[in-house]
Amino acid sequence: MIKKRINALIEQKKSLLCVGIDPDARKIPTFFLRMQDPVLEFARSVVNATSDFAIAYKPNFAFFESFGLKGLHALEALMRQLPNGVITIADAKRADIGNTSRLYASAFFETWGFDAATVPPYMGYDSIEPFLSYKEKLTLILCLTSNGGSQDFQEKRMQDGKPLYEAVLEKALEWNQFDNVGLVVGANRAEELKRLRAKAPTLFFLIPGVGAQGGSLEESARYGSDARHQSAIINIGRAIIYPDGEFGSVGEFEKAVARKAEEYVLAMRSALERLEA
Amino acid sequence: MIKKRINALIEQKKSLLCVGIDPDARKIPTFFLRMQDPVLEFARSVVNATSDFAIAYKPNFAFFESFGLKGLHALEALMRQLPNGVITIADAKRADIGNTSRLYASAFFETWGFDAATVPPYMGYDSIEPFLSYKEKLTLILCLTSNGGSQDFQEKRMQDGKPLYEAVLEKALEWNQFDNVGLVVGANRAEELKRLRAKAPTLFFLIPGVGAQGGSLEESARYGSDARHQSAIINIGRAIIYPDGEFGSVGEFEKAVARKAEEYVLAMRSALERLEA
Repeated sequence: MIKKRINALIEQKKSLLCVGIDPDARKIPTFFLRMQDPVLEFARSVVNATSDFAIAYKPNFAFFESFGLKGLHALEALMRQLPNGVITIADAKRADIGNTSRLYASAFFETWGFDAATVPPYMGYDSIEPFLSYKEKLTLILCLTSNGGSQDFQEKRMQDGKPLYEAVLEKALEWNQFDNVGLVVGANRAEELKRLRAKAPTLFFLIPGVGAQGGSLEESARYGSDARHQSAIINIGRAIIYPDGEFGSVGEFEKAVARKAEEYVLAMRSALERLEA
Repeated sequence: MIKKRINALIEQKKSLLCVGIDPDARKIPTFFLRMQDPVLEFARSVVNATSDFAIAYKPNFAFFESFGLKGLHALEALMRQLPNGVITIADAKRADIGNTSRLYASAFFETWGFDAATVPPYMGYDSIEPFLSYKEKLTLILCLTSNGGSQDFQEKRMQDGKPLYEAVLEKALEWNQFDNVGLVVGANRAEELKRLRAKAPTLFFLIPGVGAQGGSLEESARYGSDARHQSAIINIGRAIIYPDGEFGSVGEFEKAVARKAEEYVLAMRSALERLEA
């Protein structure tokens, strides 16, 4: 079962860290840009540097696609070179009418070989069911996102007084018959995270927005994880993969990235230890 | 202005037809599958056969991606070979937090060169603004979709008694300062289409769901178009690109596809003529 597999990794590595792999031509250290495949080399370095700390990697397709098809080829190559057993999350936020979503689900879970994928809920059950039907894969439904636009629709109150994102949570619970459903909840929404976790003790949570987006790591670990301090993945992208400083070589860059990843994992561990104390 | 450009095409071709290009390995006539690039050859044949009738082409990315990266290469080649002036709609339904959506918008509108793109609304303004900032491109926001899952969230009543999809329409009106916003409303929702058009006389409508999904062409043309019988694009996919019958050659296939496209355009014309009478 996918949830068990992830929780075993969490326990083994004492980490909730997911590293967001978002290659950005304006931020990748310049020495990579002189290599034959800068996107692949950069991504591979990030993975090398963080593999002791991360339980998951979450490439965001937009960043790879921004390099055109060669960016997607780089992602394809990266997928073949990831450490064994690590969890891979396709952050592509795709869903469509049923017969079309079936193609997306098969692309991410079979062709690409991801363990998990993010999906937007707006089109409802038949747009998500093709993902859910892969029992051994994790489907992460956008619930309350970390961006300002979350107030436009997600926080709108429904007739029963609850915000729309709670209606999404309720459906997610209903759709969780294979224990393979998760929610995406922004780290900068600590209050809501706490409330949502209380309402959904069994769901997986993917929590982006720590670091560059200002969410608190401590609160994300404390409020986002379940009663056993598991079932949560905290994504950190920019704050780890683009460390401050100038780097002249792969070695220097990887050292700085590893230091950042370690820093975050140590902070996670002490947050969880405080919980246990 | 993009709306003017599309409406000029509508007037010139007396057509609201958008052809959905959804290559499906299980449905493409087998003689294409023996060619070197079946996806490209099939898509090109569909375009050849329909170019007298269609004002727009809407490739759905899921179908191209289902062939792996070679499917996307085929789409890239197709984009370079489309007839001049025809409208191209990237049906990819992508949106993410602001800085990420910016990459999607630039990918679809600049790298790929599409005239329009579909976006889901769940993540709100900053996830859509990067698309809107291209004043000469059309951003088509999912409003009320043609699938069963539309009832899960889109039709949920908000505190003011209105369904969520109307909140999306209201935001779309607010965001339409460059006259480059459209809504996606399913053809099988004739009543709602009529009501939404009345509330949004200035927005563009993309209407999928005629044909295989059972929406009425007559009602879509009548209720979806604006006061001048323009500003609407009716998408037909499967019912045109997969005509019944066995085809042994490109010529036979294109003839059958052209016949279907003509049939639909003649039906659209008579629906609009009845309106004018």
